Amino acid sequence: MRIVTLAAAQLGPIQRAESRQHVVARMLELMDQAKAKGATMILYPELALTTFFPRWYMEDQAEVDAWFEREMPNAATLPLFERAKEYGMAMSFGYAELTPEGRHFNTCILVDRTGKIVGKYRKTHLPGHSEFDTSRAFQHLEKRYFEPGDTGFPVWRTEGGLFGMCICNDRRWPETYRVMGLQGVEMVLLGYNTPSVNSQKADEGPEKRLFHNRLSVQAGAYQNSTWVAAVAKAGNEDGFPLIGGSLIVDPNGEIVAEATTEDDELLVHACDLDATKFGKATIFDFARHRRIEHYGRITAQTGVELPPE
Amino acid sequence: MRIVTLAAAQLGPIQRAESRQHVVARMLELMDQAKAKGATMILYPELALTTFFPRWYMEDQAEVDAWFEREMPNAATLPLFERAKEYGMAMSFGYAELTPEGRHFNTCILVDRTGKIVGKYRKTHLPGHSEFDTSRAFQHLEKRYFEPGDTGFPVWRTEGGLFGMCICNDRRWPETYRVMGLQGVEMVLLGYNTPSVNSQKADEGPEKRLFHNRLSVQAGAYQNSTWVAAVAKAGNEDGFPLIGGSLIVDPNGEIVAEATTEDDELLVHACDLDATKFGKATIFDFARHRRIEHYGRITAQTGVELPPE
Repeated sequence: MRIVTLAAAQLGPIQRAESRQHVVARMLELMDQAKAKGATMILYPELALTTFFPRWYMEDQAEVDAWFEREMPNAATLPLFERAKEYGMAMSFGYAELTPEGRHFNTCILVDRTGKIVGKYRKTHLPGHSEFDTSRAFQHLEKRYFEPGDTGFPVWRTEGGLFGMCICNDRRWPETYRVMGLQGVEMVLLGYNTPSVNSQKADEGPEKRLFHNRLSVQAGAYQNSTWVAAVAKAGNEDGFPLIGGSLIVDPNGEIVAEATTEDDELLVHACDLDATKFGKATIFDFARHRRIEHYGRITAQTGVELPPE
Repeated sequence: MRIVTLAAAQLGPIQRAESRQHVVARMLELMDQAKAKGATMILYPELALTTFFPRWYMEDQAEVDAWFEREMPNAATLPLFERAKEYGMAMSFGYAELTPEGRHFNTCILVDRTGKIVGKYRKTHLPGHSEFDTSRAFQHLEKRYFEPGDTGFPVWRTEGGLFGMCICNDRRWPETYRVMGLQGVEMVLLGYNTPSVNSQKADEGPEKRLFHNRLSVQAGAYQNSTWVAAVAKAGNEDGFPLIGGSLIVDPNGEIVAEATTEDDELLVHACDLDATKFGKATIFDFARHRRIEHYGRITAQTGVELPPE
């Protein structure tokens, strides 16, 4: 057994006016609870430090950049790093990253129990659109404020196992999990901000959104025989509802813990990384069963190519 | 609306001693029921004409070859072709194919409403093993009796839509659906024979096997915004139980029909191929959202490559 006692720390809503300092205080409260429950790793959601700002249309780049972090840790987030190190707890959270070169990414990091940043991932699959879209019930401007990530999907050796990360919409794409599965990943950490209603389809509400969240995460776990933990920022942010439904899924694809609120809420589960071994050695023994000679389209073409008429 | 009224024709068990003629009579009975319910297409399972013979270890090649079809249609299956044509019903079923060159495949075909074979698919992902395995509770010798398919995953224009096929274990591999999704597939037809217990893990019984079946099929449908119909050969074959759980899944990943028995059983659903359009134009608009520059491992490596120590 190789146990990682994982705390999936769902955050309730963060209003637009709420400061990073206030959010970090909420995150520290969850970290304290996680420590009391024996957690050795804590996972917070995508863009954990602020409201989900891509719903707001902005034209002033200075206004946009105010939502981004120029260094990590910084003054606002240093208390997280210090307390996690004090507790000997590994940590992952998402934030908007502005690089010294002026590039904007939707980013998350993996911090080991000594407080060292050992992994950084930048979101690959940006949903939404880049210009104001009057046909939508509300805006989802990730393609405006971020560029697609340049990291690919690395897997890191840390904390006694093989860890990968992805962010929100990445979880709907089987390529995400498979690229990590091909590096032997044993636990995928991911956070999300998912509106409770499809902005382009009013009758697709929270039940269906939660169903798609579970389905994507469970399939990714099963088909790569890996743990996956997915943690939400949830609830009503300035009138815009986000689903909760944070969950921890085992390498069989079964849900072992699931959030019941849309508030700050902690799920803790003792995840045995050795539970990934059976699936990886049998039905998903890639070396014996995959047939890459028939997968060519997956990397050769981006969009659909219809068969000839 | 482009409606295909699909009949998913689950077959109950076929004992080793049962003749093809007897099985075809059962298939015709299901076809008659399908016609009465307005079906325009009927789908039968993998290796529909015989018992699931890969559970039996055989060393005499003549004994093996007796389970294979040398031409299609042949005397035993001609009544299926004739009646489907009479009914103006498209049809798909699986069988063991022995080619004139002596090659062995686990195959299925798609026959249009005029009785013409318009598509042939040969199973890509063969599960199991090739030599007698004393460590298993029972044998699963697909890797002994078949070679991996050489067709890839084509998509055919027929019956007013875009159709693909896969077989049994193929459904657990997201590459299967994605290669078809990249050709715009609107309906995937598949059959399976799935033992109710994992031969290498006695505590993985029918509930978990049914869960994995649903999970794989639902995720493939949702992530490619396509209909998927999966139909079982089910029940107790000479003491070896197979799961049922045949199902039809819509392009949102939702189950719209599911079998309740392990016998011959018909599911009929009016599937609107235009229901695939919304997903393909929005969240799964591949041309806008896929990032193939980060998927390279999927086609560059077959097995796992661990990160450096």
